[in-house]
Amino acid sequence: MTIVEELLNAKAGEAVIREVDLIYAHDGTVPLIIESFRKTFTRVRKPDKAFIFFDHVYPAPTVKIANLQREIREFAREQGIRIFEGYGISHQVVPEEGLLEGAKIIIGADSHTPTLGAFGVFAVGMGATDTAIALGLGKTWFKVPESVRVNLEGRLGKNVMAMDLMLHLIGLLKDFDMNYKALEFFGGLDLSIDEKMTIANFSVETNAKTAVLDNGTFSGDGDYLREVTIELGQIEPLVALPHHPSNVERVEKVKRKIDQVFIGSCTNGRLEQLRRVAEILEGEEVSVRTFVGPASRRIYLQMIKEGIMQRLIDAGVTVLPPGCGPCLGRHMGVAGDGEIILSTTNRNFKGRMGSPNAEIYLASPVTAAVSAIYGEITNPEDVL
Amino acid sequence: MTIVEELLNAKAGEAVIREVDLIYAHDGTVPLIIESFRKTFTRVRKPDKAFIFFDHVYPAPTVKIANLQREIREFAREQGIRIFEGYGISHQVVPEEGLLEGAKIIIGADSHTPTLGAFGVFAVGMGATDTAIALGLGKTWFKVPESVRVNLEGRLGKNVMAMDLMLHLIGLLKDFDMNYKALEFFGGLDLSIDEKMTIANFSVETNAKTAVLDNGTFSGDGDYLREVTIELGQIEPLVALPHHPSNVERVEKVKRKIDQVFIGSCTNGRLEQLRRVAEILEGEEVSVRTFVGPASRRIYLQMIKEGIMQRLIDAGVTVLPPGCGPCLGRHMGVAGDGEIILSTTNRNFKGRMGSPNAEIYLASPVTAAVSAIYGEITNPEDVL
Repeated sequence: MTIVEELLNAKAGEAVIREVDLIYAHDGTVPLIIESFRKTFTRVRKPDKAFIFFDHVYPAPTVKIANLQREIREFAREQGIRIFEGYGISHQVVPEEGLLEGAKIIIGADSHTPTLGAFGVFAVGMGATDTAIALGLGKTWFKVPESVRVNLEGRLGKNVMAMDLMLHLIGLLKDFDMNYKALEFFGGLDLSIDEKMTIANFSVETNAKTAVLDNGTFSGDGDYLREVTIELGQIEPLVALPHHPSNVERVEKVKRKIDQVFIGSCTNGRLEQLRRVAEILEGEEVSVRTFVGPASRRIYLQMIKEGIMQRLIDAGVTVLPPGCGPCLGRHMGVAGDGEIILSTTNRNFKGRMGSPNAEIYLASPVTAAVSAIYGEITNPEDVL
Repeated sequence: MTIVEELLNAKAGEAVIREVDLIYAHDGTVPLIIESFRKTFTRVRKPDKAFIFFDHVYPAPTVKIANLQREIREFAREQGIRIFEGYGISHQVVPEEGLLEGAKIIIGADSHTPTLGAFGVFAVGMGATDTAIALGLGKTWFKVPESVRVNLEGRLGKNVMAMDLMLHLIGLLKDFDMNYKALEFFGGLDLSIDEKMTIANFSVETNAKTAVLDNGTFSGDGDYLREVTIELGQIEPLVALPHHPSNVERVEKVKRKIDQVFIGSCTNGRLEQLRRVAEILEGEEVSVRTFVGPASRRIYLQMIKEGIMQRLIDAGVTVLPPGCGPCLGRHMGVAGDGEIILSTTNRNFKGRMGSPNAEIYLASPVTAAVSAIYGEITNPEDVL
């Protein structure tokens, strides 16, 4: 069986009804969920298994958004659902706050819910209507996806991170139809959980329905659609050019002056990544405006304890409150017309971070940090 | 002579032309200044004495603002003017970065420019046109304001801060026409510079043109319009009710549940104030959403070094990047309809922090911190 088959206890291609162990959503999606929910239900079935996170546009940048957040608070109070406000990004806070305990099947009203696949669970993003139904019933249907197996062998080089691995993978799969497929990763067990979450998170950009990483307990002897083996030691620093994450190029081939760097988000805003950034920026000074957005309050606190924060601020970085930061172009560093942004996030679609006339390049935190110093996209292999 | 007469070297009521030692503006006012400037001038007269600060709405929350900031950067590059981006609030960064060195007459394109009066200088806010003229000519006209003298005697109580003193003073002067007058403060020499800046800053809310604090070098034997003596030891914790800073009441008489607390800004975002807040919040937990906005990057860094930051985060506070934060209702914690905000800032006009249907109460950082714990406006004397 594939991991996904094992977790859903059914064969790929089957449609099954399953109890949902955990349902969560954020300030960006809850308003639509409430609207949809109210058409059919009055009570959330398992309010202790449902959670809301304010991460996308928090603290509120407009009266309209402040009002939406008020409505969410009222709904949560009425239904007995806990809101995590100011804690950081949902996908990070769920495991950090122990909400994943005992959960195997998870729904999130956000496309990057598969981030949790790093913990060997089946986690999928759903739209507002499906999430509302699951909130009301406590269960929903799943069509078991077919899987592509990725074998990770060896170790990443010194200046290469999980982000580079994923840029490599998305390039490999560019012409393969990943629609409604799952990516299953085996090997790479010595990667930190922070980097594993990057792998699961970025998998979504291949168009996969979900991703899951073997934690050593799965058999992984099912019928895989395809099998890919990646020698980690051979991966080089990569960058995704505008306007798609699969538009991958070796960093050394890209020379581009940049206006802004953003390091953070659910893709690369964890300690493992920010430690690397702080090591690189220690004693240096950024030459372009650089924002760091820790994925959670706990990470923010740990950054202070480990001296990461101090080194970043000393280098001229602006540290944002925990949350999604400028990743979705709705506050805290929106891209202007013609600006060139280098970001460690997962999407560089036209207009994603602000102006449709901006260009977004995606790279690893290591590449982003060295580029922030030099003011242009820079190959870490050349300078570290 | 009054302090102002001494600084301008002219009698109250006279109009004089003076060289300006320092001119500064921020992201909120520069676009209008540029427009005005271009009508008459091509070059800034003394670019090394002119500075721009990105503090009001930074990092950019919209494409429009990002584009305005781009235009400012182009103007600054063209004119050889330095921009302080991500450093924090202009009025704080000017003295911190040594820009005040040797300056006696200062223009800022912001109404709270008199904050610098804490350093015994003549600092006034001007509109875009007047600032543009001063940038082009290097000098401008001043009508020397008449002064009101305030004598500070004794010491503030344990739970009382400069903010309470100023709320007391604005109440006292409520029916006195302060239009185009200067407030001159004598005594209180043992107050920290952080608290002195609060005094000068909040003076603007009495409608005064400027404020200046004696540093022990001024004679202060001029013709004062009025003289007020305040016994600091008798001041109690105060709060300004909606919708005007002069609408002052004793905290103990105000019972009000709150939705949000903001501690920071050019009024109360300095170390002296944030230290007090951290002492109060240590080991406690805020029960309403609470934002702290340090006035500058240096303060932010020092908060980390002193353990202030850690205590705030542990208590559940969200720390914003250095800058004006939600004070002007344009990002990072905008008030929704019907929300009750307790803020340590200087203005609670209708709609100032977001929705015109929100209510803003102003109080000291000590009062704000205890209120954040209890979720309602709380008299620090009752609980500390």
